Amino acid sequence: MAGMEHDPGGVVTLARDLIRCPSVTPDDGCCINTLAGVLEQIGFSVTLLPFGEEEARTPNLFARLGTGHPHLCFAGHTDVVPVGSARWQHDPFGGEIHDGILFGRGACDMKGGIAAFIAAVRLYLDQTPDQRGSISLLITGDEEGPATNGTVRVLEWMEKQGQIPDFCLVGEPTNPAGMGEVIKIGRRGSLNARITVNGTQGHVAYPHRADNPVHRLLALLGELTAAPLDTGSEWFEPSSLQVTSVDVGNTATNVIPAQAHARLNIRFNDLHTGADLSGWLRTVTARHAPGAEVSISISGESFLTQPDAPVEALRAAIRAETGQVPRLDTGGGTSDARFISRYCPVAEFGLVGASMHKVDEHVSLADLKQLTAIYAGFLEKVMH
Amino acid sequence: MAGMEHDPGGVVTLARDLIRCPSVTPDDGCCINTLAGVLEQIGFSVTLLPFGEEEARTPNLFARLGTGHPHLCFAGHTDVVPVGSARWQHDPFGGEIHDGILFGRGACDMKGGIAAFIAAVRLYLDQTPDQRGSISLLITGDEEGPATNGTVRVLEWMEKQGQIPDFCLVGEPTNPAGMGEVIKIGRRGSLNARITVNGTQGHVAYPHRADNPVHRLLALLGELTAAPLDTGSEWFEPSSLQVTSVDVGNTATNVIPAQAHARLNIRFNDLHTGADLSGWLRTVTARHAPGAEVSISISGESFLTQPDAPVEALRAAIRAETGQVPRLDTGGGTSDARFISRYCPVAEFGLVGASMHKVDEHVSLADLKQLTAIYAGFLEKVMH
Ligand SMILES: [Zn+2]
Ligand SMILES: [Zn+2]
Repeated sequence: MAGMEHDPGGVVTLARDLIRCPSVTPDDGCCINTLAGVLEQIGFSVTLLPFGEEEARTPNLFARLGTGHPHLCFAGHTDVVPVGSARWQHDPFGGEIHDGILFGRGACDMKGGIAAFIAAVRLYLDQTPDQRGSISLLITGDEEGPATNGTVRVLEWMEKQGQIPDFCLVGEPTNPAGMGEVIKIGRRGSLNARITVNGTQGHVAYPHRADNPVHRLLALLGELTAAPLDTGSEWFEPSSLQVTSVDVGNTATNVIPAQAHARLNIRFNDLHTGADLSGWLRTVTARHAPGAEVSISISGESFLTQPDAPVEALRAAIRAETGQVPRLDTGGGTSDARFISRYCPVAEFGLVGASMHKVDEHVSLADLKQLTAIYAGFLEKVMH
Repeated sequence: MAGMEHDPGGVVTLARDLIRCPSVTPDDGCCINTLAGVLEQIGFSVTLLPFGEEEARTPNLFARLGTGHPHLCFAGHTDVVPVGSARWQHDPFGGEIHDGILFGRGACDMKGGIAAFIAAVRLYLDQTPDQRGSISLLITGDEEGPATNGTVRVLEWMEKQGQIPDFCLVGEPTNPAGMGEVIKIGRRGSLNARITVNGTQGHVAYPHRADNPVHRLLALLGELTAAPLDTGSEWFEPSSLQVTSVDVGNTATNVIPAQAHARLNIRFNDLHTGADLSGWLRTVTARHAPGAEVSISISGESFLTQPDAPVEALRAAIRAETGQVPRLDTGGGTSDARFISRYCPVAEFGLVGASMHKVDEHVSLADLKQLTAIYAGFLEKVMH
């Protein structure tokens, strides 16, 4: 089989096995059991942690090898996003390899990353006679979905069990185009708000007898969007507020409506907290529209892992394998790292994400092997 | 029959007859034929002017008595707004009289006004042996509806026939609470605009890769509403711009939408024209959102009739009957006077409009008789 002559740590085999488990959230396919088997064979003690309603349990797994410190944890998800409506050239769950490229949903996000870490553990154990510390894996089947009964619940369980690691590495595909480009050491926070302004309906010919809620909403949204929230901080790009919808639904051209709605999202850096921003939104709204309803949900606070020893070790391992010094970044969307950051320092590094969530998602075997070598080098450096 | 002992010029009888013709736009009931009969009996030459599609002709009427100048025209509409969903105490088309009050849809807007003018003509002809000039009536059955095949078309016909009057009196209910309060000598113009801003859809985490059309729309609406359009003019209150709707319809909280819409209405005084305002809307829009679509419809330009001799005559007649000096006003909604103003000076005076378009619309017999006397006094003054 082309490209399979050399399979360091079994990374290619495991990545294919995982891709062949159709695990579109909330389905597990055969992922968790496959991993449990492989990890037990290596010597991990594996705990299956299904959380949630009887009928729709989220599959999760925690596995640990050793009990000492440093305790390094690898976190990842086995669930994948749907295949989508576009036609694939390759079976999304076939694990086909063509010209050194492995195709399939989850290839880079992030079954390939999980396979690379497990292969790296095998290589590390082979190459390192006297091992210190312990290695664990936190695997969830609900990262692409509501993420309610996944990483959050496993972390609660780990804390109760005294299993919180000293450092966590998340295997999300962080590299935009080529291996070794980006380590994520933080993520922006995200806040959604819905604002409803009530006014007094009336006829446009008699505006003084009405109270136009659209004008109040325009004024408050104008103030909210008038200036940038900040100009960025040491490790973060500027925070961003986007008004995603404004809705009135008034089709009568001569009527001042009674109510107007807006929705907005804020991606915020470490200069803000969800609470501070909520207060600001409520204050500005109240100034222009006393009595307006503001409903806010904070999907995650911003977080930052200082680039100390473990991040430096990861950087050095990446440099040794790729010749590149990766950029330390905090941009992009959210990941489960936002939950982990509440318990321990966390950084993210994985494959090239260019094809993630797209048609014909794929990863090159060269990248898979390189990531395995990087993770093995990282284990070597960080576990000593 | 209570209140019918004295019926000057037959105003009460004619008002009741008209109310008993159910003429909710576009239906005529029996209005136009009733009026044609009454006017021919007085000596008017009557021309029926149905305009529009075969199946849905708008009933209109032009009647003239005499051919000389001054030529005074009375304009009015026989159609009425729907009864509405609220329960009436009195049959809306019954013409019931209780305690000196005549109830019915159109009682004040404006079957009562038409009846008062025709009764006034009868009184004037009785009292004036040597008559000069001529009197006409422009009656339409489509003022409350689209107004496409009503007054506009009759005026075109009148112009072709050389029948444009020297002055026109519109019988709309101009008095807010009591007879003699307000003459309207102009109306504001009205403009409706719909603005569509196209942007580039994207993810809220990557705003630099998107182009948020909501933010462009907010900025342009902010500029349009930042300052009053003016502070009013000699006869007009300030112009007013009301944003009546903003619509995006985006329910995905993490998506920057591709398109955003707004609707607005401007009621403008004689400091502006529809064309000037359209240019301003397009310029401001283009500055914030190049390529945005702006669709504008001007329902009417503002107009003003200088308070010269005919308005003074009307004022004097009102004062003689009510003891009040009516205010000259240009506020409120639009009426067919906006079309007439293109051809000749026009003023509006009629009944008390407090119950117009409402449940249990009504007029007092005292007001009907007083309006008849006012119109008769006006004819006397203006026709000499
Ligand atoms: Zn992922
Ligand atoms: Zn009317």
